[in-house]
Formats: sequence, C-alpha cells, structure tokens
Amino acid sequence: MKEKILQYINNKQFALLKGYLMDRNSVDIAEALEELNDEQMVIVFRLLDKDDAADVFTYLSNDDQEKLIQTMKDEEVKDIVNNLFADDVADIVGEMPAYIVQKILLNVDNQSRDYINELLKYPKDSAGSIMTIEYIDLKQSDTVAAAFNKIKMTGQDTESIYTEYVTDSSRHLLGVVSLKDLLLSDFDETVGNIMDEDVIKVYTTDDREYVANLFDKYDFLAMPVVDTENRLVGIVTIDDAIDVISEETSEDFEKMAAIQPSDESYFDMSVVEHTKHRITWLMILMLSSTISGTILTYYENAFAAVPLLVSFIPMIMDTGGNSGSQTSTLIIRGLATGEIKVSDVLRCWWKEFRIAIICGSILAVVNGLRIAIQYQNIPIAMVIALTIVLTVIMAKSIGCLLPLGAKALHMDPAVMAAPLLSTIVDTASILIYFQIATIILQLA
Amino acid sequence: MKEKILQYINNKQFALLKGYLMDRNSVDIAEALEELNDEQMVIVFRLLDKDDAADVFTYLSNDDQEKLIQTMKDEEVKDIVNNLFADDVADIVGEMPAYIVQKILLNVDNQSRDYINELLKYPKDSAGSIMTIEYIDLKQSDTVAAAFNKIKMTGQDTESIYTEYVTDSSRHLLGVVSLKDLLLSDFDETVGNIMDEDVIKVYTTDDREYVANLFDKYDFLAMPVVDTENRLVGIVTIDDAIDVISEETSEDFEKMAAIQPSDESYFDMSVVEHTKHRITWLMILMLSSTISGTILTYYENAFAAVPLLVSFIPMIMDTGGNSGSQTSTLIIRGLATGEIKVSDVLRCWWKEFRIAIICGSILAVVNGLRIAIQYQNIPIAMVIALTIVLTVIMAKSIGCLLPLGAKALHMDPAVMAAPLLSTIVDTASILIYFQIATIILQLA
Repeated sequence: MKEKILQYINNKQFALLKGYLMDRNSVDIAEALEELNDEQMVIVFRLLDKDDAADVFTYLSNDDQEKLIQTMKDEEVKDIVNNLFADDVADIVGEMPAYIVQKILLNVDNQSRDYINELLKYPKDSAGSIMTIEYIDLKQSDTVAAAFNKIKMTGQDTESIYTEYVTDSSRHLLGVVSLKDLLLSDFDETVGNIMDEDVIKVYTTDDREYVANLFDKYDFLAMPVVDTENRLVGIVTIDDAIDVISEETSEDFEKMAAIQPSDESYFDMSVVEHTKHRITWLMILMLSSTISGTILTYYENAFAAVPLLVSFIPMIMDTGGNSGSQTSTLIIRGLATGEIKVSDVLRCWWKEFRIAIICGSILAVVNGLRIAIQYQNIPIAMVIALTIVLTVIMAKSIGCLLPLGAKALHMDPAVMAAPLLSTIVDTASILIYFQIATIILQLA
Repeated sequence: MKEKILQYINNKQFALLKGYLMDRNSVDIAEALEELNDEQMVIVFRLLDKDDAADVFTYLSNDDQEKLIQTMKDEEVKDIVNNLFADDVADIVGEMPAYIVQKILLNVDNQSRDYINELLKYPKDSAGSIMTIEYIDLKQSDTVAAAFNKIKMTGQDTESIYTEYVTDSSRHLLGVVSLKDLLLSDFDETVGNIMDEDVIKVYTTDDREYVANLFDKYDFLAMPVVDTENRLVGIVTIDDAIDVISEETSEDFEKMAAIQPSDESYFDMSVVEHTKHRITWLMILMLSSTISGTILTYYENAFAAVPLLVSFIPMIMDTGGNSGSQTSTLIIRGLATGEIKVSDVLRCWWKEFRIAIICGSILAVVNGLRIAIQYQNIPIAMVIALTIVLTVIMAKSIGCLLPLGAKALHMDPAVMAAPLLSTIVDTASILIYFQIATIILQLA
C-alpha cells in the first residue's frame, strides 16, 4: 500500500490517489502514513474525506498526531475534532503538549469541550477514563418503533448502537436491551417489557482492568458506567476493552521482566528512553544481589576447605529462581484474570507447598545420585539433595505469598513479586546451602 | 447467589428457585453451580429453562459438563446440544472422554453432526477451530427490507447478527455490510449498493492468534473465514477472539516461566498435574546449569588464589539474567502483538546493542567505584566493571537474537527464549568473568 501511495505522489496523480484512499480501511491507511516522511504524510492526510480523516487520525501514533495538528489551520482542526468521539479526543488531549491541547480545545464546540473536560477528570486507570459519553438511552415507555427512530437519528454519532440502556427521567439506570431484542420484537411492544433488568454495570472509579475482565467473562459488546447514585454517565465499548486488555498484559510482561512500563511502542522509543525504563531496576537488582555476595564471603572458609562447593552455586540459585518464578507467574496471572483472589492465599500456599515437596524431591534424588556417582562423595550429594528440597519449598512459598501479599497491601503484584522475588530467593538459597553444608560437612 | 440457591434448596422451595434463576445471568448461574456439590448442581441445572440450560452449560468447566451429561437421559442431552451452537458443541466434544462424546453425537440432529465433524477437522490452533458455521449471508440483489427479513428469520440461531456477509451463488465472499449500515439505509436499497467490498478476511488454516490480533487492530465484531478458493465457510466472533487472546497470553506467561502450558485453570488442576507441567523444565534447567558449575571448577585455582572473586558470582549472573530477560520479554511480546517482525532483526539488535552499552557502562561505573572504595582493590574493580559491560552486551544481544531466531525457524519464541536464555547467559557470563579475571589479575 505504501508503494502504491508513493507512486501516486511521485506522478502527482492526486485525484487518483484520493479515489484510491476512499476505498481503503482507515487502520491500513494509518499504518501506511506511519511509514511516509512528514511531508508525504501531510499531503496524503489532506486528500482524505473529512470523516475518514478523523477516523484515520485516531489510529496514528501520538507523534504523528502532534505533527499533523501543527500543520493544520484552526478550521481544519475543527473538522477533525468535531468528527471524533469525545473519549478519543480526551485520549489525544491527555498525551499532547500544552500548546497543542490549547489548539484542540479552542476548536471543539462547547458541548464537546464540556464532555472532554468531564472525561479528563477521571483517574488514569479508571472505567471513567475509558468510557464514551455518546450512547443511546431509551425510556421504559418507548415503543420498539420509537426506539428504532431514536437509534436511526442518533446512530451515526454513537460508537456502539448494538446495546441500548433504559433510564428514568433522572438518568437512573433501569435496564438494558440489545438491538437484536428490538429487531425480533413487535413494533408496538414497549421497551419496558422487553428490557433485561439484571444489568451488569460498573462504577466510574472501578479499575479499567477489572472492567475489561468483565467483558471477557460475560461476552458483552458494551457495558454501562454509572455514578455512585446509579445514574448512567457513559458506556465502555468492547474495542476499548480489548485495548485495555492488551495494554495491561504488556505492562505485566514488562513489570515481571524488571522494566518500567511504557505506553509507547518498542520502535517509537529512543535508545535513551529504553535505557531510562530499564536502568533503575537493573541497578537496584545489581546492588541487592551483592547481599548474597556478602553472605558468600562470610562462608569463605567453607569453600576454601571444600572448593567443590562453589561449583554448585549456579545450579542452586537457578533452581530456586526457576521454582519461584513458576509459582509467582501463575499467581500474578491468576490475579490479573480474576481467577485467584487474595482470600485464596491459604488454598494457594497449600497447593504450592505440596507441589514443591514433590518437585523438590524428584530434583533432589536425580541430582543427589548424579553427584554421588560422578564425584563418589556421599556427604556432598546429601548436602545438595537436602538443599534442593528446602530451596524449592522456600522459593515456591515466597513465590506464592509475595504477590498475594502485595495485592493485599494494594501494591502491584507484578512489580513487587518478580524482581524482588529473585533477590530474596537468591539470598535465602545461598543461606540454606551453606548452612546445611556447614552442618553436614562439619566445617564450622 | 450461592447462599440464596442453597437456602431455596434446603427449604425445598423449588418453584421459587426456578423463578429466581430465570432472571439471572447465565455466567453468574454457572459460577454458582461450580461451587455447589454434585447433587445440588444436578438439581439446580434441571430447574433451568431449556434455552438457559444450554447457555449455562457452555460456561461450566469440562469436569462439571461431564458429570451433568452422565446423569442425563438421551432426551435431555438432545435438548441441550440442539440448543447449542455447533462450534460450542465441537469445543465440548474435543475435551470429553469417548463414551461422553458418543452420547453427545448420538443425540444431535444430522445437520449439526455434519457441522461438528467439519469443525473437528481443523487443526487445534487454526481459525477453523474457533469459527462458527452459523451466520447470515446475503446476496447482492437482496433489498434492505429482504435483508431484515432474513435476519429476523435466522437471527435467533446465529451467534452474531451485527455483521452480515454477502456471497455469490457459489458462496464466494463478495462484501460485508453491518446491521448499522442496513438500519441507516432505505428499505428498497439493494445490499450490493451499500456493502463494503474491501473485506478483511482470514483463511481456515490461519493461526488463531493472528486472527485475534486482527480484531484488536481493526476493532471488528466478527470476521469472515474463507477457504483457499475464497468461499465463505464460517465466521469468528469477537467473544471467541477475546478468549483466544486471554488463553494465548496465559500460555506465553507460562512458557516464559518455564511451565508447560495447560488449558485448565489453576485450581482445577491437581497437585500431581501441576507437578507434571513444571518438573520437566526444572529438571532440564537444573542439569544444564551444571555446565556453568563445571566451568567454575575449571577456574578453581583462580578463586583459590583470590577468594573474593566468588562473592561477585551471584551479582554477575543476576545482572546478565535480568538484562537478557528485559530484552527477550519485549521482543517476545512484540512478536505476539505483531509489532515486531522477524525481518526487523537488525533494527532490533542495533537498538539493543546501543541500550546495552549505555546500561552496561552506568552499571559498571557504579559497581566499579563501589568495589574500589569498599575493598580498596583497583584491579578487581576493573575486572568487575569490564565484566559487567561485556555481560550486559552479550545478554541483551542473545535476548534479542534468540526469540527472533526461534520465530524464523518456526519454533515458539517464548519456549525457546526464556528458559534457554538463562542457561546460555549464565554460562557465557561466568566465562567472560573468569577470562577477564585471569588476564587482568594474571592468574594463569
């Protein structure tokens, strides 16, 4: 697609290019624009229909959105922002520098400006911040025919027309009816009779990840957002829920790999930005791993007397680390999908404890036999076998309790657990190892 | 909800319970059933409406589905399975023991049996395996009024009525039209005039993760699945796409934590099953980490001469491991979301190389100074500083190239990269460390 666009530009066939773009999907056009240089991007963007331009605009990166707004006259900004949904404008405004924000807010109509300001008030990760305020609400007394008329009148401007909410005169949420229900009902039936009163709803302050998980659980296309008095203030649509799931997943991956999460994509971030997001944890973990190093110096006599002991350090640290991260990963993922709750702590730990005993024993027997045969040294084989069992139990217990404890204290399980876990498990496994070695080999 | 149900059962108020269940959401009923004992579950399930029963059934765990089918008469099985979508039945059949499968297949009507057998033919992770074959297709010559009639007639039985596909007489896919488009058009307009011919479609053999990512990219509610000759054979709906995203994400988390992925949920798996999914990788990694142990014995003279060297082993191994997993996690996640492609290998590596130089230098300076001050030992400070820079560059390079290499060879980046990475990085970092120490401290 990029090649085709460049060809049209080079041959100055702008009318043909305009026609070509008209039939393309907005997502694909945005993808192609990202690959053009700034000048070409502006040329192509100006050839788009007003409606298409607004749509394509939402799919561009923040950098490109900023560049385009810089080149636009007030009139052009007006065309774009007034064709966008308020929640999309609010998202864009939230990411732009002040002078761009001013240019946008000067050019939206008064009602939209109120909407946008309203949306910007909600905390960053709340349901309020991802909802849209353009939706169709019906009254109980509306007939199906009247409902269809409302949908046809406002349908062009609302993000999702497939789920309608029923409210009373004070906007209290009473029920929900799908377009499918309306379509399969008689035209003179009233909405109050066909609506479902068992509405699953969320509050403006609910965490957006919790909201996204409800979409996964109930297979909804949209969900109503109410305030503390059960008044409908907006809806969350499934496309936004999917974006939240994807963003939250990436964040969890990053946190568990000791990276500060970033909203930007891999290639959009500069080398310096990437470094900033990684160096803090690398530094903390490097310095904290000197703790296990210091413990090692304390046992200097032990490995001076039996140098063979040193060669098992990587194996014991690795086995502890791997055992712990198996458990913490399952717990963190379970907490994220809602399958595991903080109150499950004893149930989880009891499960992990038994798994640890079986896993630890198998590993201990295999490795103990290997060492006994390879080195013909039964005492050292015993030290290693015992160390492995205790290390696996310790690692899996901490891997289970640390993320659940973090969640209970309203801290982030992924941040607390993964990087901190390795430091604690490393230190503890070395302590276990040399303590057992000192006793069995009588090195004191 | 569970408490309320138990109260009705204990008071034998079955008529009231039946009424109570009628207004509840199927997902919530299924969740409550999971918490009852077998006998109670069967009682409650038999009180459900036929339609509700089928719906609730799809949300139950495989274990409970199996138990219920065991207690059912043929007539009851018939009621359930003939109220289900073919793709849901195929999913259930795929997970059940043979005698249950037989009981199900004996009780579906002939057409459904053909559908189910058709679906079972597609490979496990393909678009074909997650599609539904119940959809609405329109012809170009249909008027909007005729289209509405078709939707009303078949709408009850199709999983998604909000997206309609237009085919010719040989079922070749020609275009797509949304229910919204139909609703906003005149009744005597023909479908051919309002349909969008730029249809984004997938093939039956496409990977289901690729299909799910397209939903995320294009914000669709459904997507058409065609065979190699562009004939429409089914559709994938967004609820199934979300399930795929969630399952694939969990799998990636598990693989990266050295766990064999499982379809079952954390609490549904027994201790023995959990152990089976974890012990293989723990064993492989434990045994492979003896490689770095063996390398250590080779340098026995070095740490006999300078025992202090041993105390830095954990720090160097940890820093290497963390640097590598930061990179591999970002690359694996980028490959999963489609943001990074195999062809980006040089671009990625060049970025990681520069990040590694900056990160490595900062860490080296801080740690070098710390050691120089704490131990008053400049040569060792130099050894550590140089080791850290080279280890970070090595770890980030391998962390970048390993998952991309795996993907290029059509292997799983998450499996290949995460567990294998730690072994390679451990071994390499110890080699770098003692090689540098031997040279600078002239230990040879």
